[in-house]
Amino acid sequence: MKALVFEDRLFMEDNMPKPVPVQREALVKVKMAGICKTDLEIEKGYMGFKGIPGHEFVGVVEESKDGDQSLLGKRVVGEINCGCKVCNYCLQGLETHCPERTTLGIDGRDGCFAEYLTLPVANLIEVPEGITNEEAVFTEPLAAAFEIMNQVHIKPSDQVCVLGDGKLGLLIALALNLSQSELLLVGKYPVKLNIAEKQHIKTALLEDLSSKRQFDLVVEATGSVDGFELARKVVRPRGKVVLKSTIAGNKELNLTSLVLDEITMIGSRCGAFNPALKALERKMLNVKPLISGIYSLDKIIEAYEASKRKDALKVLIDFTL
Amino acid sequence: MKALVFEDRLFMEDNMPKPVPVQREALVKVKMAGICKTDLEIEKGYMGFKGIPGHEFVGVVEESKDGDQSLLGKRVVGEINCGCKVCNYCLQGLETHCPERTTLGIDGRDGCFAEYLTLPVANLIEVPEGITNEEAVFTEPLAAAFEIMNQVHIKPSDQVCVLGDGKLGLLIALALNLSQSELLLVGKYPVKLNIAEKQHIKTALLEDLSSKRQFDLVVEATGSVDGFELARKVVRPRGKVVLKSTIAGNKELNLTSLVLDEITMIGSRCGAFNPALKALERKMLNVKPLISGIYSLDKIIEAYEASKRKDALKVLIDFTL
Repeated sequence: MKALVFEDRLFMEDNMPKPVPVQREALVKVKMAGICKTDLEIEKGYMGFKGIPGHEFVGVVEESKDGDQSLLGKRVVGEINCGCKVCNYCLQGLETHCPERTTLGIDGRDGCFAEYLTLPVANLIEVPEGITNEEAVFTEPLAAAFEIMNQVHIKPSDQVCVLGDGKLGLLIALALNLSQSELLLVGKYPVKLNIAEKQHIKTALLEDLSSKRQFDLVVEATGSVDGFELARKVVRPRGKVVLKSTIAGNKELNLTSLVLDEITMIGSRCGAFNPALKALERKMLNVKPLISGIYSLDKIIEAYEASKRKDALKVLIDFTL
Repeated sequence: MKALVFEDRLFMEDNMPKPVPVQREALVKVKMAGICKTDLEIEKGYMGFKGIPGHEFVGVVEESKDGDQSLLGKRVVGEINCGCKVCNYCLQGLETHCPERTTLGIDGRDGCFAEYLTLPVANLIEVPEGITNEEAVFTEPLAAAFEIMNQVHIKPSDQVCVLGDGKLGLLIALALNLSQSELLLVGKYPVKLNIAEKQHIKTALLEDLSSKRQFDLVVEATGSVDGFELARKVVRPRGKVVLKSTIAGNKELNLTSLVLDEITMIGSRCGAFNPALKALERKMLNVKPLISGIYSLDKIIEAYEASKRKDALKVLIDFTL
């Protein structure tokens, strides 16, 4: 099969062996995939990953090595963390924190930038009919946005600030806006902010953000090591800062100021897919304006480059092209 | 009156004017006071404070400029943050975060290392008879320990680690131990750890601490900028780190690791006095072994020096000596 491979550099490989599902796994034929910032970080060495990258996909189940065959032939998305199923984390439903986990296209498991992938059947969820492939491929990052609402109680009366108008920042703003809180999305690009504006989200350019410490909750999704400092400046005493950016590199922080103002910082990563699929099915938010371009698998290296442009948002790979 | 004054350096002043309570304030004759690490930090310039330091005290109300005279002649302790009473924080009961607040002996208000102090009557709480002055003077730092339980739900089944066997670390261990959780106090001084051991708290020397990421909750009370790194090493994925140390100076942190493991960090400062007074009255914990020495007000500079010794814990000033 055709696949994109990362080993020191990215390259296309036309004759990769088709993966073989083991017990309780399914073989999925990939239909559409999305390029994520994590994929670009992997290219720089993040997680020391080698193999087929990619973790945002929609596909069709072609084979199931599981007693339950109900997903065979169905269009599915898949949760990307595969736990050991026996440790305390897995037993508590926290498979995303299993110390033995593999993660699709990120850690110890080949990803979705290939014609076929394998995942445990239990990780797959059927995509409802009303959701197109272009929308379904946003399920994984949108689930990461909804994860915030699993971790933090957001009240409609809360003043919430999302920092960052990249792909993740926009998806977070779209998801959190469902809380009907006083939400402000802050970014650098009017054209990106405009996508949120059109969906009833108040926005501001970074240069216009007042440094008044007014927000009950600040979500740091800038993808920059300086995002935390900014979050710290606008969060109120006793407020919360959710950290979403995963960036190589450390940052000097003044921990005493966190103590004095009793700030809570919450690291937030992957989330469950169901809330994201529900919101997409019910058309509660529109992810399509985030699509910057659609490429064939043969042109995926070109797609990577397109994805790195400052004005780019989500770049998709259509496997039917 | 006699008072200790900090202005670039500490010095005793015999003829300070007695403070005059304003509307709704009381004049309190100080009976006993405690030296806190914050006092030592003030000597180094913390908060830019100038005036009479000191914020841990027990005293007797001599005058009350308030309609309610019920505390007159009573033995009291006093909450140290004085809010404006009209801002959103004050109206929500979060006077400790009022942007206009003054803080006894720390910020904008003379403290308790003097024969008399003034505080709003609403800040004062009568000390129950069964509590000695030596115990009552621990109310303020013990309240800061109980604050953790207001911020974090500690389950009896939780594995909890307190880092730091200084005054605050020990008080935190004594307070959190009431949760009946699996508690471990980690420190450097067997003689200090022994105080906790005698009150049914498991302890370990820092050098013997396994770097297994096992704790649901880690309280960082080392008073060192390196404490956070240590907390990070032993907290489990999805665990919580409570930050208690207020130290001048920044620290480089890897924020991505907080995101990957979805760690929650919670800054924690002052707490309400009632739980601390209740625990002292009911003899649920014994603070007396933490007393390293008792000095007269005349010898307070000597007491400061004693308080800086590595083997020292709480040094008290007895105003009746």
